[in-house]
Amino acid sequence: MSIHKKKYIGLVGLGRMGLAIAHRLIQANFTVLGFDQDKQAREKLELLGGAPVDAITEIPNKCDIMWLMVPAGKVIDSVIAQIKSNVKESSIIIDGGNSHFQDTIRRSQELAKDNIFLLDCGTSGGLRGSDIGFSLMIGGDHNSYKKAEPIFKAIAAPNGYAYLGPSGAGHYVKTVHNGVEYVILQSYADGFNLLKHGQYKDLDLHKISKVWNNGSVIRSWICELLEEIFAQDQSFTDISGFIDENLTGQWTIEEANKQNISMKLLEISLEIRAQSRQTGGDYATKIVALLRNKFGGHEVKKT
Amino acid sequence: MSIHKKKYIGLVGLGRMGLAIAHRLIQANFTVLGFDQDKQAREKLELLGGAPVDAITEIPNKCDIMWLMVPAGKVIDSVIAQIKSNVKESSIIIDGGNSHFQDTIRRSQELAKDNIFLLDCGTSGGLRGSDIGFSLMIGGDHNSYKKAEPIFKAIAAPNGYAYLGPSGAGHYVKTVHNGVEYVILQSYADGFNLLKHGQYKDLDLHKISKVWNNGSVIRSWICELLEEIFAQDQSFTDISGFIDENLTGQWTIEEANKQNISMKLLEISLEIRAQSRQTGGDYATKIVALLRNKFGGHEVKKT
Repeated sequence: MSIHKKKYIGLVGLGRMGLAIAHRLIQANFTVLGFDQDKQAREKLELLGGAPVDAITEIPNKCDIMWLMVPAGKVIDSVIAQIKSNVKESSIIIDGGNSHFQDTIRRSQELAKDNIFLLDCGTSGGLRGSDIGFSLMIGGDHNSYKKAEPIFKAIAAPNGYAYLGPSGAGHYVKTVHNGVEYVILQSYADGFNLLKHGQYKDLDLHKISKVWNNGSVIRSWICELLEEIFAQDQSFTDISGFIDENLTGQWTIEEANKQNISMKLLEISLEIRAQSRQTGGDYATKIVALLRNKFGGHEVKKT
Repeated sequence: MSIHKKKYIGLVGLGRMGLAIAHRLIQANFTVLGFDQDKQAREKLELLGGAPVDAITEIPNKCDIMWLMVPAGKVIDSVIAQIKSNVKESSIIIDGGNSHFQDTIRRSQELAKDNIFLLDCGTSGGLRGSDIGFSLMIGGDHNSYKKAEPIFKAIAAPNGYAYLGPSGAGHYVKTVHNGVEYVILQSYADGFNLLKHGQYKDLDLHKISKVWNNGSVIRSWICELLEEIFAQDQSFTDISGFIDENLTGQWTIEEANKQNISMKLLEISLEIRAQSRQTGGDYATKIVALLRNKFGGHEVKKT
């Protein structure tokens, strides 16, 4: 690979997270050839300084490394099928989304027959990662990982990327990460629900989240986002407590069941989310919905 | 109060947390008159630059503000009874421990009859707070809070103290804080238990905790302590998964029940702890025990 060519990277999927990835790469002086079916998304890439293309097949023609930031499941298979015939030998495809690790292993094995390498990269950090960098959990062929490392370094926060093992290891660890996340979100939400509706009626939840973030055992980035939320409002009268989710929580439970490991806290957190979609939830699930909006831009439903 | 006198503070209870509080105050140029029944603890205060006294009654003679850092329950009542007759009018007693807020309200009302003010201060941050400062959740008479504010400022991390409301409000918020903490500890522990025993057998939990701490949604101080733990060991073969606890978790459940608020995640976290004390627990409860040791110095049992 020439030095010139190393600076090119393909990017399929220009949603919120895809554009955040593009921003990181452009800041690090990569030329981002990006595609999305949505013309407006392609225009957003151009505004960021990237190079949108009108056909997905142009990307594998020009790039040896391609980052996919599209929804898990059939969309990934469809994108791979569309680009596969144009992908050069020894090219590297990075799936930066929330794919099931078993799907990743299958795709990796299929692509390997044509000497194409699929790396899996669990990507955490939400939309703020655009500025401060992401946490990247990477699996797959180690030699390909080394080739793609400058890209991971550009996208990651300082010390925010790690090669974790063979194909699927990155998506596996990201799945468990999401399981942990679901419980932590519900934990803070339950605590602030009690503080809001408990013995002391006039507690200032903004003051409390702020004091918890400065020196307490439970200080965290999620609690910093709570501080931002409570600075704006603490009544949440006009929003629903409907909490959406992707499949990673269920996958974590399935893996725990296979290994005969109990994850009751996650089971209950998922039950609370399922119930919230039936009933509109409560003050606690409103907090979770607002946190998901803060970090991921996920919609909060209005009542 | 003269400027000279303002610099004196009494401290009853020179255990791990008491000495950490003493260190903060001494660094901020307070003269700490400290008492503990244990002679060795008094000697430790002297080594820190404090002024141990041989009788608890000397403290109220010399100080207008006294910090109590002793176990919740009868010990607090006993300490107050011992010093009460020597406490001057308008003096301020600060209970920095994990008292039940209802006990705090009762004690505050009793002391108020003699024109003595009891402030409640929930103190979070563990032993590291000695260096970086604590998170302080404060309740009680507001005028007394303003008088004692220089002491809170000295002990707290930057922005790490807040006046939250009338008597008991500080202990109430600290109790809920502990309930949230119990669930968060178990959440990470469950996740790493699955990573250790799941599909990929050779995952490096140190690498994973490190990458989670740099840019991920679930970065937190607790996860930073996990990074320290996993840097040392990931097998935990010679320790027990016995998890001890104080009463704050149960109190949080009781308060939630009174308000008809569900806190199932905390209920289950407490059940897991209770079970760990019967059975010795599992890999997950070993992680919780190690975390409690890291932040609070709590004993980890050997097998």
